[in-house]
Amino acid sequence: MKGKVYLVGAGPGDPKLVTVKALEVLQQADVVIYDRLISPQLLMYARADALKLYVGKQKDRHTLKQEEINRNLVKYAQQGKTVVRLKGGDPAVFGRVGEEAAELVKHHIPYELVPGVSSIYAVPAYAGIPITHRDHASSFYVVTGHEKPEKLVSSLKWQHIAHAADTLIFLMGVSRLATIREQLLLHGRSPSTP
Amino acid sequence: MKGKVYLVGAGPGDPKLVTVKALEVLQQADVVIYDRLISPQLLMYARADALKLYVGKQKDRHTLKQEEINRNLVKYAQQGKTVVRLKGGDPAVFGRVGEEAAELVKHHIPYELVPGVSSIYAVPAYAGIPITHRDHASSFYVVTGHEKPEKLVSSLKWQHIAHAADTLIFLMGVSRLATIREQLLLHGRSPSTP
Repeated sequence: MKGKVYLVGAGPGDPKLVTVKALEVLQQADVVIYDRLISPQLLMYARADALKLYVGKQKDRHTLKQEEINRNLVKYAQQGKTVVRLKGGDPAVFGRVGEEAAELVKHHIPYELVPGVSSIYAVPAYAGIPITHRDHASSFYVVTGHEKPEKLVSSLKWQHIAHAADTLIFLMGVSRLATIREQLLLHGRSPSTP
Repeated sequence: MKGKVYLVGAGPGDPKLVTVKALEVLQQADVVIYDRLISPQLLMYARADALKLYVGKQKDRHTLKQEEINRNLVKYAQQGKTVVRLKGGDPAVFGRVGEEAAELVKHHIPYELVPGVSSIYAVPAYAGIPITHRDHASSFYVVTGHEKPEKLVSSLKWQHIAHAADTLIFLMGVSRLATIREQLLLHGRSPSTP
């Protein structure tokens, strides 16, 4: 009897921004595999006897490679365990959930996606910036600040990015901020953009 | 003594995808002002003696105009009441939260934004479509399918939208699907885009 894997979004940091559904599955879990940005308070909802496995990634220093995370998900599910894969924000927004789900499908392991509050709008909200506004912004564009390192040629089309949307959001982009700003201005985005 | 207004995201439909924080403020509310897409199960978390005011909008038929919603938020807060403004999805993602917040600021009423799970990624997730994938999609673009009706000239720059992002998401766009598809193809998006 195979276990089930829940791919769960924990929200943007504040443990109260977790969903009721995420707490429910966390309380049922035999194994919790969690990322770096997960609040320790959330882990306290897991059973005391649940195995808690830290697989946090840091820039230039991945504790466990993605392949090992995938292997762990499969291994524990094949032991019949209920596994919660707890990710910061929402698992489908740059959370590599596609790769983990593909691995589970390959091994015929049932899984369920539990969406979470994404940092793409929660972080600007706390700073008082709504990412859309009926008078000012009817579209937004979101891109990862870090592309897959193996991509030799960037897939970013700066000449279009600079003009396509009213609000632009770059995730995990702090270390590339200068390049991002330079490319946007070079391709005609107004220097007066807030 | 002024009350406080919470601008709260209720999530994408499933009442279990509400956040713990949203439930907390809902339980405290004297007044709940809610939209059309709110699950009735969520309203049961409000106190029995709380005033529940339906302000749902439907296409071409707004039960209460936005100005009236703003007036109600101000009125009850000025009576010292705790007001929860409950919106589908996330309030900052095309939820007109900017307009409501501006009105509260104008009247010096304290407010707090409580982010929710947005339908922009939760709906594709339930359909098995991750909106990003490390190998296939490092960016996405979100736009409202319905622009502000008073906008005579569309602010949408189709020549850039067609090329800027790997994944394109049009909200509330069903009635304009033909136009959207036509404009994208006209401006060079590949007809083989999934």
